Amino acid sequence: MTNTQVSLIQIDNYGPWTTTPEPRREVDLQTLQSRLFADVAQLVGAREGYAFFGRFDNMVAVTNGLDRTEHERIQTSLGNRYPVTSSVSIATGETPADALATASRRLQDSGSAQDSSRREVLRGETLADADRTDSDVQIAHFDVDDATGKYTDKLNEFDTFIRIEQGYAELMKHMREAHDSLSFFVGGDNVIAACSGMDEAGYRGAIDHVREAADVELKVGVGRARTPQEAGMTAKHELERCRADGTAVELGW
Amino acid sequence: MTNTQVSLIQIDNYGPWTTTPEPRREVDLQTLQSRLFADVAQLVGAREGYAFFGRFDNMVAVTNGLDRTEHERIQTSLGNRYPVTSSVSIATGETPADALATASRRLQDSGSAQDSSRREVLRGETLADADRTDSDVQIAHFDVDDATGKYTDKLNEFDTFIRIEQGYAELMKHMREAHDSLSFFVGGDNVIAACSGMDEAGYRGAIDHVREAADVELKVGVGRARTPQEAGMTAKHELERCRADGTAVELGW
Amino acid sequence: MTNTQVSLIQIDNYGPWTTTPEPRREVDLQTLQSRLFADVAQLVGAREGYAFFGRFDNMVAVTNGLDRTEHERIQTSLGNRYPVTSSVSIATGETPADALATASRRLQDSGSAQDSSRREVLRGETLADADRTDSDVQIAHFDVDDATGKYTDKLNEFDTFIRIEQGYAELMKHMREAHDSLSFFVGGDNVIAACSGMDEAGYRGAIDHVREAADVELKVGVGRARTPQEAGMTAKHELERCRADGTAVELGW
Amino acid sequence: MTNTQVSLIQIDNYGPWTTTPEPRREVDLQTLQSRLFADVAQLVGAREGYAFFGRFDNMVAVTNGLDRTEHERIQTSLGNRYPVTSSVSIATGETPADALATASRRLQDSGSAQDSSRREVLRGETLADADRTDSDVQIAHFDVDDATGKYTDKLNEFDTFIRIEQGYAELMKHMREAHDSLSFFVGGDNVIAACSGMDEAGYRGAIDHVREAADVELKVGVGRARTPQEAGMTAKHELERCRADGTAVELGW
Repeated sequence: MTNTQVSLIQIDNYGPWTTTPEPRREVDLQTLQSRLFADVAQLVGAREGYAFFGRFDNMVAVTNGLDRTEHERIQTSLGNRYPVTSSVSIATGETPADALATASRRLQDSGSAQDSSRREVLRGETLADADRTDSDVQIAHFDVDDATGKYTDKLNEFDTFIRIEQGYAELMKHMREAHDSLSFFVGGDNVIAACSGMDEAGYRGAIDHVREAADVELKVGVGRARTPQEAGMTAKHELERCRADGTAVELGW
Repeated sequence: MTNTQVSLIQIDNYGPWTTTPEPRREVDLQTLQSRLFADVAQLVGAREGYAFFGRFDNMVAVTNGLDRTEHERIQTSLGNRYPVTSSVSIATGETPADALATASRRLQDSGSAQDSSRREVLRGETLADADRTDSDVQIAHFDVDDATGKYTDKLNEFDTFIRIEQGYAELMKHMREAHDSLSFFVGGDNVIAACSGMDEAGYRGAIDHVREAADVELKVGVGRARTPQEAGMTAKHELERCRADGTAVELGW
Repeated sequence: MTNTQVSLIQIDNYGPWTTTPEPRREVDLQTLQSRLFADVAQLVGAREGYAFFGRFDNMVAVTNGLDRTEHERIQTSLGNRYPVTSSVSIATGETPADALATASRRLQDSGSAQDSSRREVLRGETLADADRTDSDVQIAHFDVDDATGKYTDKLNEFDTFIRIEQGYAELMKHMREAHDSLSFFVGGDNVIAACSGMDEAGYRGAIDHVREAADVELKVGVGRARTPQEAGMTAKHELERCRADGTAVELGW
Repeated sequence: MTNTQVSLIQIDNYGPWTTTPEPRREVDLQTLQSRLFADVAQLVGAREGYAFFGRFDNMVAVTNGLDRTEHERIQTSLGNRYPVTSSVSIATGETPADALATASRRLQDSGSAQDSSRREVLRGETLADADRTDSDVQIAHFDVDDATGKYTDKLNEFDTFIRIEQGYAELMKHMREAHDSLSFFVGGDNVIAACSGMDEAGYRGAIDHVREAADVELKVGVGRARTPQEAGMTAKHELERCRADGTAVELGW
């Protein structure tokens, strides 16, 4: 059990915007999306949160430590910098999946993602300081064992990409179904997950599952802390320990 | 059969850089990667090419129309703006997969992606103007049928994401294996593919495969042109036609 | 008298970098500088500070409310995102000019701006929370009266620019010499100043001086607060009041 | 005499936007402006042009080599990426000042910079290929002699900034009045000018004027070419020659 605060950031009416009055140039859309995400990452990261690009028009962030005013500021900043606006829904839960389910429902109750009259909604509530503890957030940082040696330096880049992607597809599904945890590909051969209170057996099980289902060998470092950033930094150090010691799972507590 | 020019842009020695001397803050890495990709998209897009983020540390671009000097400029610009450098390998082929295979091999022959002494390699050759025709590039633009109504407005955002992702994982594999085509998720519920000379039956087969394997319903617009941008813009217009007419496959020729 | 905390952010060894091994493309330098400044603005702004681009390779920020750790994070973030590093020197003073003088001296004592071995210096100290009050920072927001009607819509854009620039050159000098205040052009026809404890007569004097010396008519709104952002937002509202009421000076206290 | 093509890029109705419905956070405006300029610099630079930030809401670019379609693309791209739109006016002339005067007039004739109904105007015409020669553009790159030794490493950063700024204010005015040339501060101690057909005596005169009026010692390298970028790169190399040889003016022809 954890105490995860999750924020769903959804670009308002984005699909229709991309094709109105006629399809916009793909390079402009790619530029817009990746910069908007970079800004979300920074605005969330400035307060110790972790943001994930997800589908780019729907970004998920773990935001323990950010209050409502700070979410409002993120929303305003995006509106001040981009030609699109965003709606934000915040929720907390004992697992990341629970929290995101609540956040999703709240946003859906406010109108469709493609409703042109639903703009800059801000819903939900954040953790009270009194309810926060030093182990509220659990972050796992996975990578593919020797991806460079096994894939990047050997295969066609697309075949490497397929391997990594199939591994990710299996991992994200397993972590969601078995552990109510949310896993995101973050580039290279890395996946970061916001986890429920998983233990070593849970992580070993996830790694075994991906090996069997996709023939991809993962390792993972895990951290636990008051904020996503602190938990995530511990996870990175633990992953370095896996690398140094040849182990598959290292927990930082 | 097409005549596709593909460029592989690989950040030099990126993995080690992210953890040296100790792990860098994830928010900085996310910011760096997504901005660097946005720059690649723009530099390639300024000359009618299409760039895909792929794994972010290995980006793939379709670059019919960009010559060697322009690739050199992209490489120099990245080095002038970021704390990392990049290597670029260019190749042409009758299918996108063939071209990327050649480009990957050329880069691998120059040293490992994690070789700290391999920096700013530029390999390969580009299409001669005389060899270019108005149907060299085939671009397909897929999206998920009514993703907002079926998923975004109904499911937990992560479950929506899983659906889109599983559909993508099946599509990318099928398109690669059956058609030597390279498919990239580009945000929302959209996938863009650089294709070999596929016909309508091929696209219907791909859509059928994804429906059966992942229970996700796709539609697709396809364009063919001298440059990726023109082919891609046609594909977008054809996809709009699918939306208007309720069809699943529209070819712009 | 105020209690201003000022930070000097200097790109390390920037001049030599721009011409080594040979002059870099100006477009890359312009891109680098303006993005790096945007990042500084955001990193400082996330904590209620105000950053000014100044000469771009030497940026000045008013940072009441940012502690040493946050400055360190700014420095690390820049190093993680750009091909150059930065040194940061922080100081406090009864006037902004005093504070910047101390900050400049501290940095100069650590080595030359063009010393290739001086990298990522962080010097100085920040205000203790106990010493902060609700009127520590005074921010003035000037603009040119009816710049659009008098200049932009009438003159050659460069002649408009010359007028604004000559007005700014006079203002910055006067505010520095008569009031130990630091004025920065921030785009359009706007100048923002970090001020010492100036009163209405001081601001009227500054406006009179610029009218006489450069024949440019200014108006100004002024705010006072615990943080630059709050003081600056008040200044903006007061400037709106000038616009509405046709007045030249409005103080928000 | 030169054959300079100048483009004026004006953000539509920007002043009112910054204060509607109430003043927007300065950090967001600074971020918007500097990123928008970086994009203009890149879009113009991708085709060998030079862009200057000027007042940020009114940017001036030297665009020999960019045709009308490319200007349209710049305009569309900005609209696709930012919450504001821009109008663009292009003109050619025997001097840069003449060209900008024509471009300014054309835009003014289309409506006020603060007219909310004037949006995305594109006016003017570009040089026909047949009229272009290898000496159409003359670019001068000035810097302050030993700015680091004399100022940056010795003075309060603001006093350094004042010196550079006063030198720039004198230079821009002199170059405009005596030579119909447009000079822009580009960061550090650098000024780049789009010049009419000036000769060595003209440049010596400009340097003498700034020494006398502002007590700032400049040096300058000058280039002449078909495109701004090529002329500007020659100017940079000539400035390096000044540095190496201790000379004040070097012409690259």
